Amino acid sequence: MMNTPLTLAAMIERAEKYFSKKEVISRTHGGMHRLDYGKVGRRTRALSSALETLGVKKGDRVGTFAWNHHRHLEAYFAIPSMGAVLHTINIRLSAEHLIYIINHAEDKILLIDPDLLPIIEKIKDKIPAVQAFIVMSDDDIPPQSHLKPLYSYEKLIKDGDETYEFASDLEENDPAGMCYTSATTGKPKGVVYSHRGIVLHSMALSMADTAAVSESDVAMPVVPMFHVNAWGMPFAATWLGTTQVLPGPTMTPKILAELIETYKVTITAGVPTIWLGLLNELEKGNYDTSSLRAVLCGGAAAPKGIIQAFESKFGIPFVHAYGMTETTPLVTLSRLKSYQQDLSDEEKLEIRSKQGLVVPGLEIKVVNENGEVKRDGKEMGELLIRGPWIANEYYKDDRTKEAFRDGWLHTGDVVTIDDEGAIHIVDRTKDLIKSGGEWISSVELENALMAHEAVFEAAVVSVPHPKWQERPVACVVLKEGKSATKEEIMDFLKPQFVGWWLPDDVIFLDEIPKTSVGKFLKLKLREQVREHVAKTTQ
Amino acid sequence: MMNTPLTLAAMIERAEKYFSKKEVISRTHGGMHRLDYGKVGRRTRALSSALETLGVKKGDRVGTFAWNHHRHLEAYFAIPSMGAVLHTINIRLSAEHLIYIINHAEDKILLIDPDLLPIIEKIKDKIPAVQAFIVMSDDDIPPQSHLKPLYSYEKLIKDGDETYEFASDLEENDPAGMCYTSATTGKPKGVVYSHRGIVLHSMALSMADTAAVSESDVAMPVVPMFHVNAWGMPFAATWLGTTQVLPGPTMTPKILAELIETYKVTITAGVPTIWLGLLNELEKGNYDTSSLRAVLCGGAAAPKGIIQAFESKFGIPFVHAYGMTETTPLVTLSRLKSYQQDLSDEEKLEIRSKQGLVVPGLEIKVVNENGEVKRDGKEMGELLIRGPWIANEYYKDDRTKEAFRDGWLHTGDVVTIDDEGAIHIVDRTKDLIKSGGEWISSVELENALMAHEAVFEAAVVSVPHPKWQERPVACVVLKEGKSATKEEIMDFLKPQFVGWWLPDDVIFLDEIPKTSVGKFLKLKLREQVREHVAKTTQ
Repeated sequence: MMNTPLTLAAMIERAEKYFSKKEVISRTHGGMHRLDYGKVGRRTRALSSALETLGVKKGDRVGTFAWNHHRHLEAYFAIPSMGAVLHTINIRLSAEHLIYIINHAEDKILLIDPDLLPIIEKIKDKIPAVQAFIVMSDDDIPPQSHLKPLYSYEKLIKDGDETYEFASDLEENDPAGMCYTSATTGKPKGVVYSHRGIVLHSMALSMADTAAVSESDVAMPVVPMFHVNAWGMPFAATWLGTTQVLPGPTMTPKILAELIETYKVTITAGVPTIWLGLLNELEKGNYDTSSLRAVLCGGAAAPKGIIQAFESKFGIPFVHAYGMTETTPLVTLSRLKSYQQDLSDEEKLEIRSKQGLVVPGLEIKVVNENGEVKRDGKEMGELLIRGPWIANEYYKDDRTKEAFRDGWLHTGDVVTIDDEGAIHIVDRTKDLIKSGGEWISSVELENALMAHEAVFEAAVVSVPHPKWQERPVACVVLKEGKSATKEEIMDFLKPQFVGWWLPDDVIFLDEIPKTSVGKFLKLKLREQVREHVAKTTQ
Repeated sequence: MMNTPLTLAAMIERAEKYFSKKEVISRTHGGMHRLDYGKVGRRTRALSSALETLGVKKGDRVGTFAWNHHRHLEAYFAIPSMGAVLHTINIRLSAEHLIYIINHAEDKILLIDPDLLPIIEKIKDKIPAVQAFIVMSDDDIPPQSHLKPLYSYEKLIKDGDETYEFASDLEENDPAGMCYTSATTGKPKGVVYSHRGIVLHSMALSMADTAAVSESDVAMPVVPMFHVNAWGMPFAATWLGTTQVLPGPTMTPKILAELIETYKVTITAGVPTIWLGLLNELEKGNYDTSSLRAVLCGGAAAPKGIIQAFESKFGIPFVHAYGMTETTPLVTLSRLKSYQQDLSDEEKLEIRSKQGLVVPGLEIKVVNENGEVKRDGKEMGELLIRGPWIANEYYKDDRTKEAFRDGWLHTGDVVTIDDEGAIHIVDRTKDLIKSGGEWISSVELENALMAHEAVFEAAVVSVPHPKWQERPVACVVLKEGKSATKEEIMDFLKPQFVGWWLPDDVIFLDEIPKTSVGKFLKLKLREQVREHVAKTTQ
């Protein structure tokens, strides 16, 4: 067979050649933009040529610091297709972490959204290796700024060569992108994505049995483009000529609901907190969401209640998936097997609220101290993953040896696997609660709590206990205008769990602290709760 | 990213792990068999172990000479997963060609269907390198035969190790399979398929925008498993846990119709002549074919009439595709783009009767003596293809340099490409008719002829002409019980073509000579017609 490499350049070229009439709909600070793939292709080539003129060479890292919009999409293809490495930087990181990762990645150039310039201005003296800044605004004159030299993205495109030929020497194992994990402890860890990994992941996303991304879709990635390539959706969608809706800066649930209605979005992807917000908005407003065929949910376990609410109240199919920064990210996805279609609604919901089967192309293994766990849906073990879109190291980082061992990624996620092969995330190894020598899953308790009609969000953490080592405590955020007492909450949980699983206390909070990508920040919450418990038991 | 290789072993392992309850339904001489993937996996491992015991080593070729059934499917995975090469041999080849390819491939062992033993017995003295024969019958005692040593497949499975571990040293570029082209001139040419090529092709087949093969399908490959891996469907279907219906020996249209009805087949694949036969059968009988979501048609251009008949008469969606032995085989597939959905039925049929867009992962180019042709659906040129599941050579064959040049496969197929990027096969370079310096497409005329209600099949070939160099002559097979005169046929064509395209004569035949895989044998027909013309003009 020919040794034709799998590259991102071939993906954007396919959009240019066969889908030049299909559109990317993009929301920026300046308003809505519509560009067809013919234009996106020419602008992408012009950006590559401009970066080359600015001195970017094969293997150089170019950072982006931006929301989800067409310019970010162009950078997604322009940077890797000239042989450089697209480093998407999480805009919600602390200054300390930003400085760390920009220096660690040795970004040569940064592309920055106009509203995010002040964040970079504040740290500019700490990132001396960056040679140029590009502002991704609608204007072709850059604003006043301390950042020097500062170029206008639109001016660079205007002056660039829109017939630029992408690198002809791309190898499929060349680095195409990188992303740092949003660490809750220690420094962020860098993951490098290869061209091969991203192309194979795009194929996987497009298979009928996974997300089935198609030309006929209108895809709206809500998950940020600065976070694991927006789960790879912009890559797959461009390749297939799928209409894309990129929702831009500061997207509120209202904006999302309006975009879905206006542009007849068929598939969207994001974390559970986003969907909780959208659910609230849909309950308030009167939106037509009938175009939606799939809401992909990952990044954290989706409580059954959300799945049920989306489907029964709004008829919106909800698809639970699992992945992480280290896995490009799609690893598992929950769909019913054909012979499960006739089960009761409750049984089906039970299956679909799991994280599901590993997608074709990857392999998983669930192990604990006794070896591989039984496929009984009960025995817990750590999830191990391997395959061609799984990282094999952290970029220049000693922590590689903790996570990557014997050819497998050790995820730190504790799961069960049932007789059908579906995994169910029980917890992070570090968030499990060890009570009297037995494990209690904080996630199981959280899911049960969030099914209570007055509960908006809930998190369960451990507190030290003299007799049982650790005991669970529930932190609950109530829905606006709803109320519930500790006793009501406990009565709601009692029939669902054995006695020793029940939380020792229920604490009502205004919000659950979260990471920059919307996951519960358990470490911080644990400190808060332990302080609270210490105070109340004094 | 991890350098995990893409291998067939991982595909069958996925079926074993996650779809052990799903079934392969297989028709053999002995009747119907139902095996779940758990059993298929164990039998596949037992076959690998038996072949190892018989001396098969990494890289050795093992030939199969068989219909579509579960034993052939087991061989599809057992042979490559132990590191050997699955050589599927076309059972319809002449003795001369069989001897040539078995010797050229240096097959070490042959797996043979019981009814096909006599064919191999006749040539046994000419294939001295074959060390053992295995008969794929339901019995576990081999029949009396001149072939020595002759083993029973079922006995080997019984004695084999069903926990056999597949080769751990498989590289993705290792050869997995091979198939010889059914040559109309000269010796057959061998094509070697790599593990990587087959896995990527399986992903491509499973994408929502191509054949969308899914776990929920019931897939029946009618295209023989001895011909380009039955278009790769058994590989993709096993990987995804799709129910498979393997229709076995001597499948008549009646048998196919019954299998579709009984097992609720959702997707099937074959050449136009098969579908013409099925169409006749459906018109006669009273079958429930409502389960069918796609009839894939390739191997030769499908006349518009077939597409229309399947869809309007029986509501069966018909999907036109294109590929060849050298391309694993899927290259293009005809689907409407989203913005073409609102066109008139006639316009849609026009689009869908083309061969369509190149599938994600491959690239095509259409060239003639002036370079790349215009995308106007008119200018003709040769189709060139490249990509990771396209062969880069013929196996140990000097003819490699004719077809594989400058990194592209030169297909010998003449096509047009329209402004949407869809290709339309006009002819084989060697079947085009050159009249007065202009090209006439035999295929276009054939499609028009086959749309006539009395015409069952039609082929158009060139005859030499003193003034115009070549002129077209039509050969027509009428439907049973239908009649038409030469004048009626000509009157039917006249409004559809410019005058000089019209055939000089219409000859009525009982059948059109065909190749072993059901394509028109133009070379032979041309001789017949030229003799006929010579006689009638004497």
